Amino acid sequence: MTDPLVVFTPSGKRGRFAVGTPVLTAARQLGVDLDSVCGGRGICSRCQITPGSGEFAKHGVSVTETALSPWNQVEERYRAKRGLIDGRRLGCQALIQSDVVIDVPPESQVHKQIVRKAASDRPIKMDPATRIYLVDVEQPDMHDPTGDFERLSAALTAQWGVFGTLKCDPLLLPKLQTALRKGAWQVAAAVFDDGTDAPLLIGLWPELPTSNLHGMAIDLGSTTIAAHLCDLATGTVVASGGVMNPQIRFGEDLMSRVSYGMMNPGGAEEMTKAVRDRLNALMSDLMAEAQIDPSLIVEITVVCNPVMHHLLLGIDPVELGQAPFALAQSGALRMAARDLNLDALSSTARAYVLPCIAGHVGADAAAVALAEAPDQSEDLVLVVDVGTNAELLLGNRSRVLACSSPTGPAFEGAQISAGQRAAPGAIERVRIDAETGTPRFQVIGSDLWSDDPGFTDSLPTANITGICGSGIIEAVAELRMAGLLDASGLIGPPQAGGGDRIIAEGRTFSYVLHDARETGGPLIAVTQNDIRAIQLAKSALYAGARLLMDEFGTDTVDRVVLAGAFGAHISPLHALVLGMIPDCALENVHGAGNAAGTGARMALCSRAARRQVELLSRQIDKIETAIAPRFQEHFVAASALPHASDPFPLLRAHTPLPDARFGAGVTPGRRRGQRRVSPKTEQT
Amino acid sequence: MTDPLVVFTPSGKRGRFAVGTPVLTAARQLGVDLDSVCGGRGICSRCQITPGSGEFAKHGVSVTETALSPWNQVEERYRAKRGLIDGRRLGCQALIQSDVVIDVPPESQVHKQIVRKAASDRPIKMDPATRIYLVDVEQPDMHDPTGDFERLSAALTAQWGVFGTLKCDPLLLPKLQTALRKGAWQVAAAVFDDGTDAPLLIGLWPELPTSNLHGMAIDLGSTTIAAHLCDLATGTVVASGGVMNPQIRFGEDLMSRVSYGMMNPGGAEEMTKAVRDRLNALMSDLMAEAQIDPSLIVEITVVCNPVMHHLLLGIDPVELGQAPFALAQSGALRMAARDLNLDALSSTARAYVLPCIAGHVGADAAAVALAEAPDQSEDLVLVVDVGTNAELLLGNRSRVLACSSPTGPAFEGAQISAGQRAAPGAIERVRIDAETGTPRFQVIGSDLWSDDPGFTDSLPTANITGICGSGIIEAVAELRMAGLLDASGLIGPPQAGGGDRIIAEGRTFSYVLHDARETGGPLIAVTQNDIRAIQLAKSALYAGARLLMDEFGTDTVDRVVLAGAFGAHISPLHALVLGMIPDCALENVHGAGNAAGTGARMALCSRAARRQVELLSRQIDKIETAIAPRFQEHFVAASALPHASDPFPLLRAHTPLPDARFGAGVTPGRRRGQRRVSPKTEQT
Repeated sequence: MTDPLVVFTPSGKRGRFAVGTPVLTAARQLGVDLDSVCGGRGICSRCQITPGSGEFAKHGVSVTETALSPWNQVEERYRAKRGLIDGRRLGCQALIQSDVVIDVPPESQVHKQIVRKAASDRPIKMDPATRIYLVDVEQPDMHDPTGDFERLSAALTAQWGVFGTLKCDPLLLPKLQTALRKGAWQVAAAVFDDGTDAPLLIGLWPELPTSNLHGMAIDLGSTTIAAHLCDLATGTVVASGGVMNPQIRFGEDLMSRVSYGMMNPGGAEEMTKAVRDRLNALMSDLMAEAQIDPSLIVEITVVCNPVMHHLLLGIDPVELGQAPFALAQSGALRMAARDLNLDALSSTARAYVLPCIAGHVGADAAAVALAEAPDQSEDLVLVVDVGTNAELLLGNRSRVLACSSPTGPAFEGAQISAGQRAAPGAIERVRIDAETGTPRFQVIGSDLWSDDPGFTDSLPTANITGICGSGIIEAVAELRMAGLLDASGLIGPPQAGGGDRIIAEGRTFSYVLHDARETGGPLIAVTQNDIRAIQLAKSALYAGARLLMDEFGTDTVDRVVLAGAFGAHISPLHALVLGMIPDCALENVHGAGNAAGTGARMALCSRAARRQVELLSRQIDKIETAIAPRFQEHFVAASALPHASDPFPLLRAHTPLPDARFGAGVTPGRRRGQRRVSPKTEQT
Repeated sequence: MTDPLVVFTPSGKRGRFAVGTPVLTAARQLGVDLDSVCGGRGICSRCQITPGSGEFAKHGVSVTETALSPWNQVEERYRAKRGLIDGRRLGCQALIQSDVVIDVPPESQVHKQIVRKAASDRPIKMDPATRIYLVDVEQPDMHDPTGDFERLSAALTAQWGVFGTLKCDPLLLPKLQTALRKGAWQVAAAVFDDGTDAPLLIGLWPELPTSNLHGMAIDLGSTTIAAHLCDLATGTVVASGGVMNPQIRFGEDLMSRVSYGMMNPGGAEEMTKAVRDRLNALMSDLMAEAQIDPSLIVEITVVCNPVMHHLLLGIDPVELGQAPFALAQSGALRMAARDLNLDALSSTARAYVLPCIAGHVGADAAAVALAEAPDQSEDLVLVVDVGTNAELLLGNRSRVLACSSPTGPAFEGAQISAGQRAAPGAIERVRIDAETGTPRFQVIGSDLWSDDPGFTDSLPTANITGICGSGIIEAVAELRMAGLLDASGLIGPPQAGGGDRIIAEGRTFSYVLHDARETGGPLIAVTQNDIRAIQLAKSALYAGARLLMDEFGTDTVDRVVLAGAFGAHISPLHALVLGMIPDCALENVHGAGNAAGTGARMALCSRAARRQVELLSRQIDKIETAIAPRFQEHFVAASALPHASDPFPLLRAHTPLPDARFGAGVTPGRRRGQRRVSPKTEQT
């Protein structure tokens, strides 16, 4: 009689096994991706499978109800204690009795695929650097006096195939003997092995911890710090949070922080301490929220721009403030998290800082490239990560280019008269009726429009507090679409439309969005200076994109991805009307959410992603905007709305832009530190 | 015309080189061991050579006065500024003009041999893990935006053959950019590469530091901590020092420290902090004394017994206090010194802790094995490291055995009525006239004997203060040789000899060495209890040696090495009379100085020594005295002086031992915690 045939789905792997073989054993012998961290002891439940029943014509198998052995005590106990989904069995306990088709559900796969919330929705495979193993260690023997660690190491090799000379983190060593004895020589060991160094023992517990191992993916921005607490077995984000970067008090933008370091002895150290402290506090909050013990947080990955990269690492960023913008280290960094004073985590946690592409194009851009994969795109894609500094990537399978552009903080509501950060109470959406010049808007915290019944009662704050980045972009674009603003960026007089919404302010005009002064609230208006600030920011962005297009030898792009937390909230139509981005079919402009954060999560969950981003960061060609001869020319031409020379035919096909001209009698506002926009080019 | 012939001595390597070839270049091409850290820039002077002149019949070469180019500016400048020994040239500046014989003096060899102050006097080859290189780094280029570290790494590979993926210590990274710019892109880089991991950048200076790199070799004993500050280029010890182990306040011997950890919550942490703090203070003192900047101290090696090993590493030693005496880790440890809070050194210094052999035979014994190399001995050697705990090694080329034996602190003057540590004012040498029973002695701090004229004036202290370990050993042995003490260890009555030197103390007798009570000084006498304490200690030592001999299958050893700081001061004759060690020809008993400390220095200076001690520690067979059935039997038989059953024929051939017997009427002293010596066996 031949042995029973076993077919695994979805892999299709098949083989014959003796009656009584555990399903887990069969899976391992066939190389089926079936998880287990307890090594078949019926403890971890990672090896859950679903046996089929009936006819499987495709596989030529007929499965009876008794194809697997009946439930044994271990399985019964597990089901009683922790529960099992109907139809599921523990692969290590169920024994093969006759021909059977066995499905391995995604959550039982080690290298399960997780779908990322990114524009491309490509899934990533779980392949974390740290894994946990339940292992039986030989007891010490006076006649063969090896250390406890040496016997643990031998057991990990024999029972789990942990190869290479395992090392023990010196800070874990003091906990080793207690854990082994408390666990009666069966312990759960966390081994970090990122493929670049010898494997490292970084955790040990007397039994399998009740939670999985976790890691933190950090997106360290100039203005905000975002952290994602991720399950390293499933890839699930169990908690996310963001805080302001405390370095703002040393300077709003990066260059003022560089200056602070130069002007103040010990200033760089001060900024380093501030950001590390805040990171620790943020991570502690997330761990508390998710109720995950810090000892289970064994890894952290960090993406950030070059200045934040240096300040986190304790490096004075002075070199990044001047040509040739030399990074201290451009490659990825691997270290103990404690060497960054990140003591909110396990004391043995490992840190991985993604590589930088260049002195102005940081690990955040590399992370965006990892997440959005322009290098794998068939069509030509422009990826724009909009923040205080904008990072741009342009490319396809043949080549990827990158640059950064100093947009300044106007897109985030700074330098805007009524501007504020995106927070409850801020205007975030604006529509202006072209006939009447009357606005309506939405406020963060409410789903209603300002002309909906009940709007005032739905507000999250007593008063509307200001206008955030996406709000000001929409307001400016709507003013342009309504003919109240001309292509040069001048707000017209009341008689040109808008009526009493238009108020004079010195020799310029402002457009009133909301006036709550009677009830003690603010006047929220778009001023001529606001328009200028937006023009400067969007010109820098567009000019960067144009430089990349020049280098690539193209005048058009196939699609545009707006990355960054802010990019997710920009309306593609309004971005096109403003001329923030090159002309593109509206349906080909997409928000990608926080792609840099996604890249950090990918690097956290996958060693392959780390290898990929290291490769990418070396392959991407960097364009230095600061020394590109045509940058200034592109910048000046991009001041107009949408552009002085680029015709934007795809945009104009669906959105006519009135041809108003309000003359150049008004001197545009100019501020210290901002580039001067030449008045000559302000008229189309 | 053929190219000039160049012959290097002492290697004998030879080759022909074009006229104008620098001597350093010729040496490198021939594989001659000629040092250079500046890469031929005439800065480091490590490549000094001595050209010969005249006929070299052996090499068939006739050397003219113009065989090398005349002194150039670089050489002249170097000589004027720093001086050069007569006849020396800089190998990188002197160019070959005609046939020449060139001697490479020992100090110009990278792998120079240094002679160790150890019994065997085998030299070791310098092969340190950390080397310094002067390197020219490419300046940053905006068009090829690699990090400063990446360019430094590439330069080290190209100019110095530093292979493997160089990493940068994250704590050095903040100093990288300043050093490169201050050094105008020529810097001195310290690379740690011990052959087990990727090479690591751990130091960077804008120019070659005026001192060489240094390291600390630490011998961490139960009672004293010794440190040697060593030049990592020459192997020279530039400063040595010792301090008391501050853990003594938690317990004199190791087991009482283990108990302290068990009885007091946080006790182990307290002891760890105490020893680390004291180590830092000791190292700071040595650096100040030698005027070496802490940033140049880049490595530390540590040898210690298992309990000190665990306490240094922050591991509670509780497991070492009970069978099966399991070590947390037995293998060698490599880590950042900062992970041990050793912050007196460079913040990027590396630590290497030598491997332990077993739970009772520590890294100190492994270091002794490394230094004394019983595994390379043709004859059978017993190596005894005498301290509070004695470690014993027995073996030859075929096999090496090890054990430890709990001698207690009597050999160090503790538990002795007038005992004290070896310090100025302590009696360290004793002779007793067999005819008259009169003693004479030497005191630490004076070269005179007590019966020499001017002795009293030569004393280093107002009064003689006590008797140290070597003094009490000699006193007891001399009493035995003078017939005032019988083989069982009983001091005879005044009428048996010794006259008024013998005083009654209760029912026992004491022997007065020195009585200064009239002048307010102490009475220094050897009491019956002192004899018992020495008997207990020496029995433990001898029993351990016998166990090893049983296991080896031998009744005799060819030679004995007395290691340990104390071992250096023990008189071989008196050790034999006491029966501390097995019978052996007197000329084959040698002191070896601090062999454990020598082993630590070897590991500091040589990667090969690290590999060797790791191999040795695994190869040595460990005998556990605590569970050996015959230990008690050997212990009891060894109580007699020299021994109850072993005849000691080699000793007796030159040193007759009187056959006195003073009866067993006196009950031997017994103290809490000491093994009881059976009265039955106390008479031969």
